[in-house]
This record gives sequence, structure tokens and C-alpha cells, in this order.
Amino acid sequence: MRKLLMIPGPIEYESNVLNAMSIPTISHSSKEFVSIYKEALQNITSIFGSSTSEGLPFIISGSGTLGMEVATVNFISKDSKVLVVNTGYFGDRFVDLFSRFTDKVEQIKPPLGQAVEPVRIKEKLDTNEYDLMTVTHVDTSTGVRNNVKEIAEVSKKTDTLLVVDGVCSVGGENLDMKWGIDVAFTASQKALGAPPGLAVGVAEKRALNRMGKLKPNSFFSDLRKWEAVSRGVLESKGGYFGTPNVNLITALNVSLGNIMSEGLELRLKRHEKMASAIRAGIKGMGLELIAKKDHANTISAVYLPNGTDSKKFLSDTETNGVVFASGLMKEIAGRYFRIGHMGSISSSEVMITIGAIERALKLSGYEVDPGTGLAASQDSLLRFS
Amino acid sequence: MRKLLMIPGPIEYESNVLNAMSIPTISHSSKEFVSIYKEALQNITSIFGSSTSEGLPFIISGSGTLGMEVATVNFISKDSKVLVVNTGYFGDRFVDLFSRFTDKVEQIKPPLGQAVEPVRIKEKLDTNEYDLMTVTHVDTSTGVRNNVKEIAEVSKKTDTLLVVDGVCSVGGENLDMKWGIDVAFTASQKALGAPPGLAVGVAEKRALNRMGKLKPNSFFSDLRKWEAVSRGVLESKGGYFGTPNVNLITALNVSLGNIMSEGLELRLKRHEKMASAIRAGIKGMGLELIAKKDHANTISAVYLPNGTDSKKFLSDTETNGVVFASGLMKEIAGRYFRIGHMGSISSSEVMITIGAIERALKLSGYEVDPGTGLAASQDSLLRFS
Amino acid sequence: MRKLLMIPGPIEYESNVLNAMSIPTISHSSKEFVSIYKEALQNITSIFGSSTSEGLPFIISGSGTLGMEVATVNFISKDSKVLVVNTGYFGDRFVDLFSRFTDKVEQIKPPLGQAVEPVRIKEKLDTNEYDLMTVTHVDTSTGVRNNVKEIAEVSKKTDTLLVVDGVCSVGGENLDMKWGIDVAFTASQKALGAPPGLAVGVAEKRALNRMGKLKPNSFFSDLRKWEAVSRGVLESKGGYFGTPNVNLITALNVSLGNIMSEGLELRLKRHEKMASAIRAGIKGMGLELIAKKDHANTISAVYLPNGTDSKKFLSDTETNGVVFASGLMKEIAGRYFRIGHMGSISSSEVMITIGAIERALKLSGYEVDPGTGLAASQDSLLRFS
Amino acid sequence: MRKLLMIPGPIEYESNVLNAMSIPTISHSSKEFVSIYKEALQNITSIFGSSTSEGLPFIISGSGTLGMEVATVNFISKDSKVLVVNTGYFGDRFVDLFSRFTDKVEQIKPPLGQAVEPVRIKEKLDTNEYDLMTVTHVDTSTGVRNNVKEIAEVSKKTDTLLVVDGVCSVGGENLDMKWGIDVAFTASQKALGAPPGLAVGVAEKRALNRMGKLKPNSFFSDLRKWEAVSRGVLESKGGYFGTPNVNLITALNVSLGNIMSEGLELRLKRHEKMASAIRAGIKGMGLELIAKKDHANTISAVYLPNGTDSKKFLSDTETNGVVFASGLMKEIAGRYFRIGHMGSISSSEVMITIGAIERALKLSGYEVDPGTGLAASQDSLLRFS
Repeated sequence: MRKLLMIPGPIEYESNVLNAMSIPTISHSSKEFVSIYKEALQNITSIFGSSTSEGLPFIISGSGTLGMEVATVNFISKDSKVLVVNTGYFGDRFVDLFSRFTDKVEQIKPPLGQAVEPVRIKEKLDTNEYDLMTVTHVDTSTGVRNNVKEIAEVSKKTDTLLVVDGVCSVGGENLDMKWGIDVAFTASQKALGAPPGLAVGVAEKRALNRMGKLKPNSFFSDLRKWEAVSRGVLESKGGYFGTPNVNLITALNVSLGNIMSEGLELRLKRHEKMASAIRAGIKGMGLELIAKKDHANTISAVYLPNGTDSKKFLSDTETNGVVFASGLMKEIAGRYFRIGHMGSISSSEVMITIGAIERALKLSGYEVDPGTGLAASQDSLLRFS
Repeated sequence: MRKLLMIPGPIEYESNVLNAMSIPTISHSSKEFVSIYKEALQNITSIFGSSTSEGLPFIISGSGTLGMEVATVNFISKDSKVLVVNTGYFGDRFVDLFSRFTDKVEQIKPPLGQAVEPVRIKEKLDTNEYDLMTVTHVDTSTGVRNNVKEIAEVSKKTDTLLVVDGVCSVGGENLDMKWGIDVAFTASQKALGAPPGLAVGVAEKRALNRMGKLKPNSFFSDLRKWEAVSRGVLESKGGYFGTPNVNLITALNVSLGNIMSEGLELRLKRHEKMASAIRAGIKGMGLELIAKKDHANTISAVYLPNGTDSKKFLSDTETNGVVFASGLMKEIAGRYFRIGHMGSISSSEVMITIGAIERALKLSGYEVDPGTGLAASQDSLLRFS
Repeated sequence: MRKLLMIPGPIEYESNVLNAMSIPTISHSSKEFVSIYKEALQNITSIFGSSTSEGLPFIISGSGTLGMEVATVNFISKDSKVLVVNTGYFGDRFVDLFSRFTDKVEQIKPPLGQAVEPVRIKEKLDTNEYDLMTVTHVDTSTGVRNNVKEIAEVSKKTDTLLVVDGVCSVGGENLDMKWGIDVAFTASQKALGAPPGLAVGVAEKRALNRMGKLKPNSFFSDLRKWEAVSRGVLESKGGYFGTPNVNLITALNVSLGNIMSEGLELRLKRHEKMASAIRAGIKGMGLELIAKKDHANTISAVYLPNGTDSKKFLSDTETNGVVFASGLMKEIAGRYFRIGHMGSISSSEVMITIGAIERALKLSGYEVDPGTGLAASQDSLLRFS
Repeated sequence: MRKLLMIPGPIEYESNVLNAMSIPTISHSSKEFVSIYKEALQNITSIFGSSTSEGLPFIISGSGTLGMEVATVNFISKDSKVLVVNTGYFGDRFVDLFSRFTDKVEQIKPPLGQAVEPVRIKEKLDTNEYDLMTVTHVDTSTGVRNNVKEIAEVSKKTDTLLVVDGVCSVGGENLDMKWGIDVAFTASQKALGAPPGLAVGVAEKRALNRMGKLKPNSFFSDLRKWEAVSRGVLESKGGYFGTPNVNLITALNVSLGNIMSEGLELRLKRHEKMASAIRAGIKGMGLELIAKKDHANTISAVYLPNGTDSKKFLSDTETNGVVFASGLMKEIAGRYFRIGHMGSISSSEVMITIGAIERALKLSGYEVDPGTGLAASQDSLLRFS
């Protein structure tokens, strides 16, 4: 029996997206494919709030991890100073990444479960020392959402490029390059709604200008190469640096088409509604979220009741037909679990999720009246407008 | 109407491979997926002629271009001296790649259409100056096949690591790590028979030992990271550096299963038989191959008759239902075309291919009795045993 | 967004079943297909509780409606007297069917919502006038389940053939030819778990003997023709009367394989558990079932609260992501709706179903505390063992 | 490895048709499906040359065999006299069918390999004794094509209804209800290009008027029932007699869309071109067709050279990657084989087909210079305009 995937990517994909995966592969240099690729780049541009005349959209075979590299190493040299806003596992990863390319890495690390305060960024950037900073919009490990808009207000007035890791946000949270973001990226398998295998992003003019002045220090992640491909595709001529993932880009394009059909605004509203209902159900059961107040609408990280064995809990919910993700933050791993609620998330998944948690908690001996969480979720769904 | 893809990747994929692409995505950390991933790694090990106890197999979301990087940059520092055997477009690309990581790059460049003579490599390596050398087994741009076995005989007696680009060979040509190859790689979309999107390869102990002594100078292509993933998967525990391309690895595994079912030896024999029939048909029509004598069994690059407009020719064959690839070598582009004949290639594709070329040449005014090429191909098919 | 199908067929199909639908069609007379067909016939035999040495399994392109014809007209002549146990819409349909083949049709019609009492059948059959009788195991229009086992106890002692319409039962309810059933049938799209398009059934020896003495009075539904096909296929030789639905039989075989993997007993238990939870949720909300006590485990027909507009209710639940079926019994259509809960039904669908009904009732102005039905369903799920 | 299906149905289906098979099944009574069903009925009407205001299109789960029944039994009573134009296996089958419904069946049986001469039909019909006649447009067993247009010229002046079995013709041969055909039908799996499982046809007013005066003598094949369904669907309201084959009707609709996109006239021209090339290749090898001069463009039945073992020949071509059909006419079975060339047939399949026959004949010891047949096919393809 199919188990519902409620992890923060891969997620449940729409059937037209999955079906597109198995269309017999066409030539990567055919007109037909170039036109699909072009449409996907244009939709990416729209969804990121960029414009094709200014920004450079890119789609590269790889993953979000590759996206982190592409979005940063093209804009720094080994003398660059960088700032990492570290709100979880993927902040640590940026530090690891930068360690290979420069010696000057600094971090801001808010307490667990809290977003960064923009004022703290202002203090740093006012020193005018940083060439580039990164912020994780939603950290997949904690469900904390940073206020990118306010951060961009700060950075755009300085010479520090702002790079946003939108892996767990774009397509499910509001993110707009026009706020003053220089580079942003995500991966196909999360709120964009296509299977894993693609790094997707946009770089704006200020970043590209910076890149023009630097020597490349990588090969596959050299954005100059991919810029030529994107430009060629956008001019309907095509371009080649590596053979593109034809089937997956076709599926991504179907998913982006789904997003455009629904309308980005309605989609974000739907994510907010469903995330609210999940949080209501969680609290209705007496559980606590890791994110104190800056909750994401794409993922929730939830503390388990004291004494609950997280392995048993995850195994019980899986037997119940729902797959959740285990904790990722070393300091509290084993004490929490994570629920992805992105993409085609609807009230159906809310019911399944809260229902499965209630029953698994009961099996773990936690005292909760079955239906309590569900009632709270129902209430939230009915009130939301 | 479906056009037959006779380009050097993507190719025509078996229907069980395509169908696997659209299986609803499962969690990348589920036991079920770890077991698929493990089986794929084990099959890769076998197909490359390596052994799991010694070699390190890897499967990374990306493309052959990423494979070039992973297979080289982990084994050099900025002081390393490298040698590139350049028999076409992808030799040039290695030079470009190395230029970002070291200043000491040398090339051996045989005349167009010729493989490198192993003795020339011996002359170079005897100087004991090179840390690493690369050779393109089959250059996709020319259809020339280098004699990797003899080259390995030379390199394994020296301290120079031998890296083989097997992108257009593995699964269709004989390649065996045990000859003394240190690192080899390919991409999913060619003779391995799965859609594009994966870099696939094996690194042997001598290379891994070298890696252990060097500091990483890249991130996504850092083989240390992927080694941890492969080791974890081979131990059935899983591992994470980037979200794997679940659907594509599942499809690759189906294709590797097809290869194992057919038997690698029979598969190589079949490639040889079909390649021979295509070459016979080509010559039967009076056309000339770019590869003088070192022909690949996976691809043929063919000169067009003088005066033939290559764009019209390719468009005519496409109208006839077959897609060939245009020339890739700048010095002769426009004067030749390329036929990929990998994967599920059978006598059916030979008939279609030679038949379509005959008719298109006729339309281009070239004097050839229709049936001449086909008769030669039939003859070749019937004689081959 | 995908809407969950909670109607009594078609239902939600497992992904391996759907994927099998698009496998490139193979020859209907190939060994490969004959072997698939044979396996499907053998699994049908098992699932109906028959044995290949005695019973005749059949799979015919068509639908349950064709199944009604095949299962009856081969065993009667125009002088035959037949008895229809009429517990709903499909009882009426049997009457219509028989009217074309004989003038002597009688009915037993229990009050709406009630199963037939076996004693009433005994009274009739004791007259020894009936050549054949039909009973609808579960009437899709009411959710009433007749006690086929007790009915067979009666009929097997007489000369009346017992034909069971198992369309809404086989694979989800216990039905066993060994009870003394002479012919039973179903359709692919319900609890057998494959898309619509096949009539599926088994005829036992007593029925086949009767058939042998009669002249055929139909063509496509002439079981003599299909007997030859089934026998040929079971002997691995194949057989032809009409081109079989290759893709659908392949998909059915995958679904039958799923059933065998789960185990029929566990599958029936699961249906009972989920049906109980749905009924608990329905009652928890204060709603009433049409079936007084003889409830099916595959479908529930539910009265809407007085004053509820059924069209609005169905449209609201569909907007909520769940498709239910409207009422089918003319006398009460518009006052009730139907929930199919067959096949891969799990606690997830229970949550979705009860949750969606609660919210839609609220929208219709019915006073119910959201969560009340869900709590009752949760309780039922947790108590069931 | 995929074997090419060159049998007279099932055939090779376009990938968009196959992909449509695995779209998750939607409710048969949903607006979405009613709209697909309606479009399919409208396209059927066009392809048969009928008009929705006059004719009744129908699509019924079943097969061509069911089509034979639906197209005839609704228009006769047990006193009707019928005439069967018998040009092969399916003529015999009509005789079998009629034997169940009337005692007055007559046949016209031209010599093997010949079409009926319309004048012979005129002689019969002039007696004014026949209520209905059937003609097989293209008999799948022989590849003989009857001249339906001239036959309709004769029948439309009489009271005899003309029923055309277009199973092996519609979509590949010219057939136009406006010639004066009263009822025509086909099955999904042949030149209409969708997997097997559907009987498809059109009945015109004169036939429907006749039906209105008769009592039904069958159930599942009662066209009155299906008329209500088709009318309901054409009015966008839907209708129910048996659960329609949702996935298959969706796939058929995709295929009908492919036909409309190509244009029926171009499609018929393409069938003629490819059939001509196949016949040229056959003759080029010195083989003989069963059809003396009235060849179909959808199928060719070919005598094997004397002494050729047909089982070995078919097994050799299958090993070569092509599946042909064995002989079906008892009197010459074992001495001939059949090639289906319908649907997406292109010059590629011509090359494969003739090439595979050449090689298999060679293996059977038949003296033919490989390439002779192919050269003749090439010549035919190049000359056709």
C-alpha cells in the first residue's frame, strides 16, 4: 500500500508530473526540448519574482547541495569575506562549503528555534567587510523561517551580495527577488513539485557583474557556463555544457505549469492554510514546535513528548501509512520529528497527518484523547479564509 | 509519430526503464530506496570490472560533465602536472577543466580520426612528471576509440593515475578497471541505458589513497562526501550529501538489471555486431567514417558526400523518422554527422538507420542505388557470428 | 490537485497497477501474455475459493453488466423459471436482463436497507420450480450485504443454480464458491483493484453441466466460447474468441498479485477494520446508514441530515478533495450518498473521508462539532484488533 | 529488448496513448470524464464520415467480436433473412453469430484471395429477400479488401441494411458512412491506435428506425441501452449502462486526437504509401500475396516459399526483433503469414519488416540476395508522392 510522504522532499507529486517522467526521452538539442526548457526557465523567473530582462534563471542537473555551490562560489575569490546566517543544519553546510574557497567565514547563529533578527545583520554589514552573505529562508532541519524581506532591506544598501537558500521555501513561501535578493536557489523536489535531481535558481545583475570580474574556481558549478546555456535556450537556440536531464526538466515544466495554473498567490495562501491547520492539530495534542514563532508554511519540526522513542514513533506512523522525517539537528536529534507539507498539500493530508500522529502517540503511551488534534485542525481549516 | 533517436545519448530506452521513471517517488532514506541504490552501486561495480572490496562506485546527480570533474579534481592539487590525451571535443573540455585547478596541463593530440599510440604515452610517462592523465575511451565527437587496455599497461607501472572518460563506452565497449585504470566514469544516458541526469563511476584504491593526502578544492564534486554516501549505502545504512535523484536511480537500476540479464559479454558482442552492420552499410553507400581504423562500437561519425548540405540532410532524415546528431568538431562541423548506436540497438535500428540515410542522400542528389547500403548491412548481419 | 475517489468503483488503484497499464502492448498470442493471462485466471480461482480442477474461471473484456449476462444466460432456456433476490438497483437490472430470455421471472424484495432472510428463499426453492436464482452479495446502491453462505446452504440442496453477483464484494468481502455457489462474478474496477473494463468470474461444474445441455442464445456472452479460451490459456496454449484487453489483464494480474501478497484473509480483515471506522465516524456525527444491520465492508450508503442539499454536499466534499457517489435508489435519491471503501483502503482514507464529511456538513449548516466523527473513527481504529 | 509488433492488432501505440493508460482513474460520472467521452464520440463520428445529428456513435467495453454482435442483432428478429459476404475467417464468424438469432443465413463466398464482385451482391439483393447483409471491409485473415463503396451503391437502393465490419480498416482505409452504410464498427486496437478493449462504431438513422420496431433479444449488446449512454454523453450529461473503461477511453481519445492532428486524408495516404512499399518489398523478394489485386493498406497476408517451415520462420523473425502473425485460414494455415501495417506505421517499420523477412528467409534456405526486397521497398518509398 502506498505510504504518504510527509517529509520535506521528496514529496507527493501530481500525477501529470510523474507521467511526464516516463515520456520517451527526446533529443536534448531538439526544438521541442529547447522550447520546454525555455518555458521552464521563464516560469522559474516568474516564480522567483525576477524578470528575464534582468535576472539569469538556471536549471542544472544536480541537487540543492549543488545549488548552494553555484549560488556562492561564482561570486567570491579566495580573499572574500563571507557571512553565514546559521539557523540549522544547512547553515553549517554553508560554512563547510565556504571553507574550501576562502578562509574568512563568519556566522550569526540565533538560538535554536529562532530566526535571525535583521538588526544583527545590520550591525555586521555596516562594517562593510563582507563580500557575500547567505541566509537559509526556511531551514529544513528546524522549520524556522527567516525574514528575508527585511534582511534584503539591509543588504541591498551595502556592497554585500545576499544569497538566499530557498530550498525549502520557493513555491510554498513568499520569496521575491525584487526585495533586493542577489541570488536565490532551490531544488526540484520540494515546493516546486518535481522529483529530485535539479538545482534551480536565479542570479540578478549585481551578482552577475561581480562574477564578471572574477576568475572561475570551479568547473561544473561555474555559472558562466550555465549562463551561456540559459541565454541560448531563452533565445530558442539551445546550448550545451552537460546533457540536461530531459525527462526531469519536462516533468518540472509540467509542475511549474501546475503552479502557474493555480496561481502563485493562491498557492501560497493554500500552504499557509494547511500549515496553520497542522500547527493547530499539533498544539491541540499538546505538542510543541521547535520554531518559537517564525514558523515555516512548508515544514513543521515537532518535539516528541518526553519519553517517546522516536524510532518507534516513526515506525508506527509508517505502519499507519505516513512517512515523517527524523530529526536532523544533532543536539536534539531523537527528541523531535519533521513534517513536510509542501506542493499539493490539502486538507486530506492534514487529516491523515494529524490522525496518524494521534494514533502513534497513543501507541507510545502518551495520554491524548483521540480526535483532539483532529478537532483543532478541523477548526483551523473551517476558520481560515 | 515517434522519431527514432540515433544520437550518442540520450538514446532509446527500454520500456521497463521509462516506466520506472514514473513510479511515485519514495523517501530517499527509506530502506526500500537504500536497497535499490545499493543494488545499482553493486551492478556498476561489476559492469566496470571492479570489486566492491577494493573500488569505490559512485552515482551522483549531474551529468558526464560533472563526472569529468569528480574523476579528476579529487586527485590533484594546484601543483599537480596533468596529461590530457586529446582525441576530440571532450579532450578539449578536460583542458578547460584543468585550467581552473592547475597551471601544468599538457596534451597529446593525434591527428583527427586517429587513436593515440600507446608508445607516445610511454614516452611522456617515462619522464615521471605527471600526477594524473586522462584519456577519452570513445570520443563522442569523432567515434575514435582509444586502446585503454594498452594505455593502462603503461600507466600502471608509473605513478601517474589513469582516469578514463568512459561516457560513450561503458556498457557498449569493453572497459575493465582491472587493466589498471585508476578512475573511470560515464553518464546514465548512454550505453548504460537510462535517461540523462547521473554521473556514474568507480575510483580504485590507488586513486583513493592519493585523495586521502590532498585537501579538497571543491564541494559538490568532493568525492570524500560521495564516498561516505556510497559506503553507507553499500552497508545498507544509507547516507546523505544531496538528495539523490530517486526516480532516475530506480530507472538506472532497472536498466543495469537489463544489462546483467542479457550478460555483459553478449551485450558487447551485440554492440559489435550492430556497429559492424552500420559501418558496412555506410561503406556500401560509398561514404567514409572519420575514425580511420579505431572505430567505436557505440557511435559512428560519417563524412557527408561533398556538396551535401548537412542541415538539409539532418532535416530530411528527421522527416524520415530518424534523428542523427550534427558534427561537433569545429574544424569539420557541417561536413559530417554522427550516429549513436548504443543500448538496445538491434538489427531493426540498423535497417531504419541505413534506409533513412539512403533516402536522404537520394533527396540530396547523391548518386546511390537505394538498397546498396542496406544490402551491405544485411550481409554483415548475416555473416556475423 | 488529485481528488480522492471514494466511490464504489472505479477506486484508487495502486501505482504498480496503474504503471502496468502503460507497458507497451504485447501480442495477445505471445507466450509472455498467455502466461500472464494464465496466472490471472489461477489467482481468480483462488480468490473465489474455487479450484482449477473443478471450476471455470473467466476474464472477459466488458464490465460487470456483461458479467451479469454471462453468469446467467448460459444456464437458462426460454422455458426456465428464475428467482431474483432484489435488494436494490442491481436486482432490478437482473429482472430487466431476464425479461429478454424468459417470461418466468420472480422476485423476493426485502424492505429497503435489509438483507434477504434465508428462510424466505427456502420457502421458494422448496417448491422445486426454479432453474436458477440470483443474489446480489453487496448491492452497490444500498450497501446491504446478503448472507450468501446461508443462502448457498439452502440452494445447494435443490436443483436451483445459485448465481452470485459479487461485483461490489469479491476481494473485499468473504465469498467462497465452496459454500455451494454455482456461478459468481465481479468486475475489475472494484475490490479486485484494477481499472474498469473486465468481467471476471467463476462457474462451477454443476452450472457447466447444465450449460452443456442447452443451446446457446447469445454470442459474445456465450460461455462455451470463453470456456475454450480459459481452458487453452490454462494449458499454456492460448485461445481466441475476441482480442483480449492485454494491458488491462496485465494490470489486473499485478493487482491480483498484490492481493495474494497481502493475503486474502488479512485483506478482508483490513476491509472490515476500515469499514468499521467509517461507520463509527458516520454514527459519531449523528448520521444514519441505509443498511440497518447487514452492512457491507466495501461500501456505505448514508442518509444526509434532513434539509441538506445533496448536490451542494457532494460538490463541497469534492472541493475538499474527496469524491463520493450520489444516491442510486430512485425512491430515496437525493436523500443519501455513498462511500466506496475498497481496495487499498487504509486509515488514511478513513481520516480524509470523515474529515471531509464533517466540514461539508458544517458548510451545509448541520450542527456537528468538528472532530466528533473523527474521534469516533480514531477510537474504532485503535480498538480494532 | 522490445520486439516490434507487426501483427494486425494489437499494434505499436504512440507514447502519448500509452501514457494516457496510466493516468489515475477518475470517476466515470465526473464532468471531466464525460467531456473526454463526448470528444471521443464526436471524433468517432468524424472518422466514420457520419454526422452527430444523424448517426449514433458508440464505444463499448468489449472487443471487435462484441462489435459484430452489437452491429447486427439489434436489427434483426428470429424471422430475418441475412446475407454474409464471406471473404475469410471473420465471414465464418458472422455465420456462427447469426446461427444463434435466425435460421435464414446465406453466404456469398468469393474464391480465396478475391474480393466480392458487387454485381453478385446486386443479383442477391434484387430478390428483395434480405433484411440485413454484412461485409468485412478488410478481412484480417487474408488481407483482401472489399469495395464497400460500390456495395453500398447497391444496398442503399434496397431495403437490406448494410453492416460493415471495419475492424481492420477504419482509420487506415477509406470508409465513409455517407456512401450508404447503415452500421459500421471497429475495435480500438487496430488502425484507431489504442490498446484492445473497446468496440467502436456508428449506426445510421435507417438502422435505428429498424431497431425501434424490434424487441431486444440480447442484453449487454442491446444498442438501445448504449444509445441512451451515447446520447447522454453527447449532451454532456453522461449516462450509465456499464462502468466504462475510463482509462482506455481516455487513451482512445488521445489516439483519435492524434488522428485528427495528422488529418484523416494524410493518414490514409501514409497507410497507402507504406503498404505499397511493403508489397513492393514482398514482391522484390519473389514472394506472393494472398490478395490477388484487392489489397488492403492495413495488412498483408503473404505466402511463404514452398518448403518453408512457418513456425521456424516466425520464430526467426521474432528473434530478429519483429513479431508477425501466423496464418488464420484453415485451408492454408502453415503456408502463409500476416503483416499488420496500421496506425503509426512509417518507413522505419517498412525497413525493419522487409529486412527481417529477408534474413529469416535466408536462414530458412530460401535463395534471395539480401537487400533485394529492401531495394524494392526503398524504390517504392522514393517514387510515392
